[in-house]
Amino acid sequence: MNTKLQVVKIGGNIIDHNDEFNAFLDDFSAIQTPKILIHGGGKMASFYSQKLGLQTKMVDGRRITSKEDLAVVTMVYAGLINKKTVAYLQSKQGDVVGLSGADMNCIQSVKRPVFSTDFGYVGDVVQVNSSAINGFLKAGVCPVFCAITHDGKGQLLNTNADTITAEIAIAMSPFFETELIYCFEKKGVLRDVDQENSIIPELNQKQYGEMKKNGQIHAGMLPKLKNCFYALQNGVQNVVVGNASILKAADATGTRITFTYP
Amino acid sequence: MNTKLQVVKIGGNIIDHNDEFNAFLDDFSAIQTPKILIHGGGKMASFYSQKLGLQTKMVDGRRITSKEDLAVVTMVYAGLINKKTVAYLQSKQGDVVGLSGADMNCIQSVKRPVFSTDFGYVGDVVQVNSSAINGFLKAGVCPVFCAITHDGKGQLLNTNADTITAEIAIAMSPFFETELIYCFEKKGVLRDVDQENSIIPELNQKQYGEMKKNGQIHAGMLPKLKNCFYALQNGVQNVVVGNASILKAADATGTRITFTYP
Repeated sequence: MNTKLQVVKIGGNIIDHNDEFNAFLDDFSAIQTPKILIHGGGKMASFYSQKLGLQTKMVDGRRITSKEDLAVVTMVYAGLINKKTVAYLQSKQGDVVGLSGADMNCIQSVKRPVFSTDFGYVGDVVQVNSSAINGFLKAGVCPVFCAITHDGKGQLLNTNADTITAEIAIAMSPFFETELIYCFEKKGVLRDVDQENSIIPELNQKQYGEMKKNGQIHAGMLPKLKNCFYALQNGVQNVVVGNASILKAADATGTRITFTYP
Repeated sequence: MNTKLQVVKIGGNIIDHNDEFNAFLDDFSAIQTPKILIHGGGKMASFYSQKLGLQTKMVDGRRITSKEDLAVVTMVYAGLINKKTVAYLQSKQGDVVGLSGADMNCIQSVKRPVFSTDFGYVGDVVQVNSSAINGFLKAGVCPVFCAITHDGKGQLLNTNADTITAEIAIAMSPFFETELIYCFEKKGVLRDVDQENSIIPELNQKQYGEMKKNGQIHAGMLPKLKNCFYALQNGVQNVVVGNASILKAADATGTRITFTYP
């Protein structure tokens, strides 16, 4: 059996709360198996965008990344959040390296093609350099990724952090027994978004399909769950969605996502 | 004889000029021996500081790095400039990784002690992790450093890029025949700062001492030259100060700094 690898995504809402984020990082640094961290952006990019007088451009409820927006997210994600996270983790046990997708070509993406909407400098992942990532893991170094990728032609691109996480987990799954853990502010997938404790302990694709059809799954959860099933379909052994504290508590709840063949 | 290593610093004034910077990066990427790039900050940090309404605090003509300033330089140096540089170099031949001093504890510093002046979040280098840097070089990966370090206790610190360059070159000199190249907008050390072509082809420490005494060396050059002699005194084999184009031209001029024992 392969060594276990934990690929952990920490959501932006946690990053915005310093104490909560540091508590999460304490738990993360205590993981003894090989591990990879991917962090979201949080509200800091919006804070700086506003301060800089940039207007958020939305089309069909989706954000457009202008050249100026790309500069801000590159600064905030790859600079401020990534390096603060690295410095904090480096002060704990273990060795970490902060990376964007451009570094050692770890995550190559393609600028999203323009059909009806031009999303601007947004990248869709085309390739993960598992060999480079494996090199770090073999040397006992934990990679910490921000959600900035590149197209291999010199252009940085803003990329969805949940998607990057799934793609990294998939790329590493031939080499490790890979567990993908999405940590965020909720305790898992909820039956009722207004009831914090209405956690669904296990969710398979059939149940997901039914709940989705009945409008029982909160819109914000849909892309995350899509990534969960995509990861399971492509070699990732375990997928869990849960609270940031899930890494610590042995009895932590959360939602285990399972794949059942039809 | 050891393999040759080129440790190259590119100054901020070049970074501000996109075409000139890219031409420099083209030349840098063509270097076939192991190499390390360290980049300065340029005016971009000041641009964002002003846009964000931050006041530059100076004491005795020296800049103080407040908490807010540290956030800006971390964003601009470790985020925007570092990742744009990495993406550009990655699109050329070779493999690069963008790093701060916090990553893999590459450059540990200590917050500058307060005597008469509190410089704020400014770090003085205490240790370079030559083993981590060597790991990249052995794997054929070129490290690209920004001038952000950490204290090992979770605090990022703003650090002088020229000093970092000298410290890295010194730390690598037991393993390589190390050449340190400071690239900036001038053609070398000038006899007359107003005469662009008054390049001093070679400068030894005795001449430097005399010229310094006679006020013949421009104030801005003093810390750079101090770093040059410091590097030579501590194992670096060759030190050159010159224009950004010096990497390309076989007949490029510049100032070779030499160490003559008294």
